[in-house]
Amino acid sequence: MIGLAGAGVAGLAATGGALALSRAEQPRPEPVAGFGDAVEFYGVRQAGIVTPAQDRLHFVAFDVITGKKAELLAMLEAWTAAAARMTAGLDAGTIGAVGGIPEAPPDDTGEAIGLPPSGLTLTIGFGPGLFRDATGRDRFGIASKKPEALADLPHFPGDTIDPKISGGDICVQACAHDPQVAVHAVRNLARIGMGVVSVRWSQLGFGRTSSTSTGQVTARNLFGFKDGTANLKAEETQLLDEHLWVRDGDGPAWMTGGSYLVSRKVRMLVETWDRTPLGEQETIIGRTKGSGAPLTGKDEFDEPDFTVKKDDAPVIALDSHVRLAHHSQNQGARMLRRGYNYVDGSDGLGRLDAGLFFISYQRDPHRQFVPVQKALARTDALNEYIRHVSSGVFACPPGLLAADDHWGRVLLS
Amino acid sequence: MIGLAGAGVAGLAATGGALALSRAEQPRPEPVAGFGDAVEFYGVRQAGIVTPAQDRLHFVAFDVITGKKAELLAMLEAWTAAAARMTAGLDAGTIGAVGGIPEAPPDDTGEAIGLPPSGLTLTIGFGPGLFRDATGRDRFGIASKKPEALADLPHFPGDTIDPKISGGDICVQACAHDPQVAVHAVRNLARIGMGVVSVRWSQLGFGRTSSTSTGQVTARNLFGFKDGTANLKAEETQLLDEHLWVRDGDGPAWMTGGSYLVSRKVRMLVETWDRTPLGEQETIIGRTKGSGAPLTGKDEFDEPDFTVKKDDAPVIALDSHVRLAHHSQNQGARMLRRGYNYVDGSDGLGRLDAGLFFISYQRDPHRQFVPVQKALARTDALNEYIRHVSSGVFACPPGLLAADDHWGRVLLS
Repeated sequence: MIGLAGAGVAGLAATGGALALSRAEQPRPEPVAGFGDAVEFYGVRQAGIVTPAQDRLHFVAFDVITGKKAELLAMLEAWTAAAARMTAGLDAGTIGAVGGIPEAPPDDTGEAIGLPPSGLTLTIGFGPGLFRDATGRDRFGIASKKPEALADLPHFPGDTIDPKISGGDICVQACAHDPQVAVHAVRNLARIGMGVVSVRWSQLGFGRTSSTSTGQVTARNLFGFKDGTANLKAEETQLLDEHLWVRDGDGPAWMTGGSYLVSRKVRMLVETWDRTPLGEQETIIGRTKGSGAPLTGKDEFDEPDFTVKKDDAPVIALDSHVRLAHHSQNQGARMLRRGYNYVDGSDGLGRLDAGLFFISYQRDPHRQFVPVQKALARTDALNEYIRHVSSGVFACPPGLLAADDHWGRVLLS
Repeated sequence: MIGLAGAGVAGLAATGGALALSRAEQPRPEPVAGFGDAVEFYGVRQAGIVTPAQDRLHFVAFDVITGKKAELLAMLEAWTAAAARMTAGLDAGTIGAVGGIPEAPPDDTGEAIGLPPSGLTLTIGFGPGLFRDATGRDRFGIASKKPEALADLPHFPGDTIDPKISGGDICVQACAHDPQVAVHAVRNLARIGMGVVSVRWSQLGFGRTSSTSTGQVTARNLFGFKDGTANLKAEETQLLDEHLWVRDGDGPAWMTGGSYLVSRKVRMLVETWDRTPLGEQETIIGRTKGSGAPLTGKDEFDEPDFTVKKDDAPVIALDSHVRLAHHSQNQGARMLRRGYNYVDGSDGLGRLDAGLFFISYQRDPHRQFVPVQKALARTDALNEYIRHVSSGVFACPPGLLAADDHWGRVLLS
């Protein structure tokens, strides 16, 4: 260790020199403009998909614990009203300063009072279990409406999925610039849903790992690399039509204009990664750590050239992450990624319990996420450093156009 | 449930009316000025105690796994240099764009490249186990330097402490406006300490639950109430001298000018709380939910009057939280609180695993935190809704004045 510490100190000494890579000297990304502003809830698409990725996430998956369709419908209607209200930055009307009803529980849990809307978006998705539960029962008479694209994801080589933090009948993705606002929203939906749904699992995330707009700087994941450089962007409307939004004829009509969400919690063995030489890290990813440029290019957004060789070996290795994940190597399959970094404390073995909460949206997970993940699971050099521990797939319907519409209507009523 | 949902919808409808408590209409606290700025690392006091509370936390406790004092000293020296560098917003010099050393692991994990200093503070504390380990061994020959004030906290009635997420030989409190910057700092300290320390437990927090400066708006905890209204503030220098900073003669000289940190992870049973009528919530806390005013006052900062009665009963109940915690009821005992809200996902029983990561700083935990917590543990009406699940006490030495000083010097060299 003394040797290691010595090396560390030597490295630190170098920061005084010309080679120093200084955060302080770099352009400082002050918080995004409109940090406190509201994102419109109503629209042709659900917000929270191509919306420029906010920096904080609270993702929740619910089990439906009632068998009564009317109860589920009433809850989804109440949820919709609450979502419209919370994304607009409105609290319920009967708490606190203006006089509440002392005999009744408050209509809102209150921890977001005084906080601005903070770009909150709430995006809902329906899981396979809503159509047919674990025992095969069609509780709500909607099994015939289940899209083929919503079939369970297959087991991938190396998967160590924990069912307790996977799946779910309904998911809600809450994104905001302030985690308290995202947490508040999820909690109030859970409160409103008491007796109808039960929280199956939930995940907090910080530090978006993808840009969903060309106006955003690419962020870094916990391996220290820029992530999502080749992501679909909101401005690429033609690509979105091709890869993101469900088209008429793709499946049941209620999903036309929607998108399918895949969630994967990917534990990263950061301590092992941190002991890996820089050159090896860059070979594994296929990009330069500093700029994010592909190893065959100079700038982040240069297209990787998988044909370039040096000393008879491909410059971007055959088992590198960028090659295996790239749409050019996957029959053009692309996704809109919207993942977040997470740290869930430590694992009891002296290591941080940290990684990437991967979220992707696509027209059909089985034609986009699945083949790419199959290729990655088989040969990605990164597999030594990651473990997939949770998995989910959800059908996210199109947006709501009017205040009298609600999240349950197209599917359940 | 239909009944509940109905009530919810009725409540929502009321938001259109005059009683609506609108977040959108309230003054919008845009992110704090200087969001990206650096906080000075060197100074008479450690930063991160009276520094205006940043909004994000990563707290880590380490076990020391070496028995060699020289290794521990070398690590603390390397940590100090890294902390000075990271709080200034500097990454190590040899990563990425400017050319790294391909054969060596990077000097920095890289996920904060491009991010501003973000108000990062790193505050170190030493736990009882550093002076004498669990087997009673004085590994580093410093048992005689152990302050009496660092004695283990007693067991309090109702405590359900999990030793796996409690205690530790060394703690580091990382606070920043950006969680990625706080996480990055803790991770790099863990990386530098490899072989010398091992992460025992770590906790992320968001949404500060206390103000440490009169310039800050009081934030809300996950019970929806303003928290820390009566907190000590950086500007109250006389009170800080009396209650916060260790004085000459209080104990061993190495702690003079420092402070003692108590950490308590307090799980909140938010679902149970959310079913409690507003009037009962306010009686339990002793304050109004909206404004945070004591039940005997009108404004948040009105002093609670514990003598006022109505119908022969005290307006602020005898078992209310504000009464039991108030310094006037505890021989004047005050603390500087610096806690954060947390959500660690869900608990597998359909509930959010959420609560308050309580942090307090004081001159002597056994004269300040302990008697107050004893009173609370015995009779606080809030106990029905909370569980203390982790506990820690750490001695935080004074600040470092010069770049050639380091965190290990006063105690270990």
